[in-house]
Amino acid sequence: MNIIVAGGDGFCGWPTALYLSKQGHKVSIIDSMVRRKIDNELHSNSLTPIASLQERVNRWEELTGNKITIYDGDLVHYDFLKEVLKQEQPDAFVHFAEQRSAPYSMIDREHAVYTQHNNVTGTLNVLFGIKEIVPDCHLIKLGTLGEYGTPNIPIEEGYLEIEHKGRKDVLPYPKQPNSFYHLSKVHDSHNITFACKIWGIRATDLHQGIVYGLDTEETKMDPILTNRLDYDDVFGTALNRFIIQSTIGHDLTVYGKGGQTRGFLNIKDTVRCIEIAAENPADKGELRVFNQFTEEFSVADLAAKVKRVAEDEGFEPQITNLENPRVELEDHFYHAENTKLKELGLEPHLLDDEVIREILETVVKHKDQVIETNILPKVSWK
Amino acid sequence: MNIIVAGGDGFCGWPTALYLSKQGHKVSIIDSMVRRKIDNELHSNSLTPIASLQERVNRWEELTGNKITIYDGDLVHYDFLKEVLKQEQPDAFVHFAEQRSAPYSMIDREHAVYTQHNNVTGTLNVLFGIKEIVPDCHLIKLGTLGEYGTPNIPIEEGYLEIEHKGRKDVLPYPKQPNSFYHLSKVHDSHNITFACKIWGIRATDLHQGIVYGLDTEETKMDPILTNRLDYDDVFGTALNRFIIQSTIGHDLTVYGKGGQTRGFLNIKDTVRCIEIAAENPADKGELRVFNQFTEEFSVADLAAKVKRVAEDEGFEPQITNLENPRVELEDHFYHAENTKLKELGLEPHLLDDEVIREILETVVKHKDQVIETNILPKVSWK
Repeated sequence: MNIIVAGGDGFCGWPTALYLSKQGHKVSIIDSMVRRKIDNELHSNSLTPIASLQERVNRWEELTGNKITIYDGDLVHYDFLKEVLKQEQPDAFVHFAEQRSAPYSMIDREHAVYTQHNNVTGTLNVLFGIKEIVPDCHLIKLGTLGEYGTPNIPIEEGYLEIEHKGRKDVLPYPKQPNSFYHLSKVHDSHNITFACKIWGIRATDLHQGIVYGLDTEETKMDPILTNRLDYDDVFGTALNRFIIQSTIGHDLTVYGKGGQTRGFLNIKDTVRCIEIAAENPADKGELRVFNQFTEEFSVADLAAKVKRVAEDEGFEPQITNLENPRVELEDHFYHAENTKLKELGLEPHLLDDEVIREILETVVKHKDQVIETNILPKVSWK
Repeated sequence: MNIIVAGGDGFCGWPTALYLSKQGHKVSIIDSMVRRKIDNELHSNSLTPIASLQERVNRWEELTGNKITIYDGDLVHYDFLKEVLKQEQPDAFVHFAEQRSAPYSMIDREHAVYTQHNNVTGTLNVLFGIKEIVPDCHLIKLGTLGEYGTPNIPIEEGYLEIEHKGRKDVLPYPKQPNSFYHLSKVHDSHNITFACKIWGIRATDLHQGIVYGLDTEETKMDPILTNRLDYDDVFGTALNRFIIQSTIGHDLTVYGKGGQTRGFLNIKDTVRCIEIAAENPADKGELRVFNQFTEEFSVADLAAKVKRVAEDEGFEPQITNLENPRVELEDHFYHAENTKLKELGLEPHLLDDEVIREILETVVKHKDQVIETNILPKVSWK
């Protein structure tokens, strides 16, 4: 299959590009390198040293013989996108190319507007590009489980059968996103739904949980292929952040009571889920929604798990409950369905002590890279 | 009360500004005059000759002694908006200032992106402006009944109590908008919901139906105060468009079977609804949704009503069912609730033959203004 991975230089996109290339697909990457620019803006860094994208794909070709083409540009530039689509004629367009940090979108008005404009316009352009140039191309769009928020009823995969006043319908699941970033994904979901309906586009919207881990089989093949790993308050996410904190003697920073429950998955499952979606395309005019996560944990649970493993390894981490910088429930019902990807063949890598230990061992090697001032939360929702 | 009417030069905004001024409120208008520029772009016009905004407010002051301040600028320019908010310190911000045509948003990619960027960013700026400068100001936002689409269950006012798998919650009503314009309003609704929650903003989102009519008591006071009236395929809406067609010997153009049912209201009720919302502000942190319409009609019903009145007046209109340029159901269940504004005092002007006759008589005076080539639909959803 001929697959474009937009955002293929990022934390999820890069291992996905390698994995798909390894499976024999012809892969090209679109990336504006904006994630690296944001590191400069925030004076932050990846814990792991990362090579340039050109170095990465060169090394990949040396190791495997598989060529990955790079298109350095931005999806908000439609003429650029059109040229790539004309040249590549992709069967699938995997769309990771969005600003993906909730705290980044909450820094101030400019970052909120940037996030929504960038994400929504980029996705609109992809929809128009598919319609105009490759109408049969399958859009595989990364949404987020956070689009749903934390309703007091179970979360279904995208749609909900509702009975009301004696009548029935299956409607889009109501969304209660909790940052300007999460809102941008909800906007995208609505736009994609409409485009599928009027133009017959085939699309899969992957409502992904919080991704943890670092390595896949492919990124482990060579240091130049190493994936980025974020630990700062803006781009670092729970679990990865806790593990890094535990190795440098920093308290594990639980926001508020830590009862916030979310869906999680290993980066190794992210790449497999994309393959599953690509190999099982949506029908023409269909927008499928898959909830892409494997397990649910509360933030407090995660911190306790990491603390235990870190102690086994000789560290002495403490858990601190910080004042929550976000406006969110800290004690709530949470249950989301996630059967569809498993039905299509996903075999989850579950989170056990061994997984935490493996990430921890990698992290320890790079812990001198940590900029400690970047760990505590500085962006407030208020 | 000190009230800003953003979009106060438009079809709904102008009569609202006059009505609120008449009631004794201190009114200022923000408008970028973009609606007039779009007339140039589309080679279209208002059926009624309209004076410049400056001439309009000058005449209003001559007639009533009431001053209306004009701020000529665009909500997407945040520095401009901030200065206006600082200067005016409004108690209420009435927000009509969005691109409001579904067909305009469907012309091509650029118009889709313009509509969503303009509407979503403008509203984000208003939210940030209120938060930063006038946190107690009540946002009265014009949404649209079209945000809901046409679900097979009754439409409630913004929220829906859902029971699912033995649990209950009250969730945002699922939205199925049917154009890039309608989608922009859904994006706004989600953004406003979030801003109310995290910042304690007070907001009322008026999900307005299709507005018909032209005159209010105030706009009738002088020809310089006349409201604009659109009849073209892009900005003209059902009823007004049918009335104009009937006076110039054009067939009444029903799209498809005409079974599409929607909520409608008279422009005289629009202005009163805004007053009701302003006089009964939402609580801090509350986003209220009112469905702002008075009656439901199918498009075929409306055409038949207009035909009958026009025949009484000596015209000979025919009804033609055109191929529908939109992708929408033409035969569907439709029922929306609209009790909240009535509970707060709205006394609807219902649509009867006399109302149609009155609009028709005004239209006849200006029928030589009609550019016939602008009547048939040219924008396709496909």
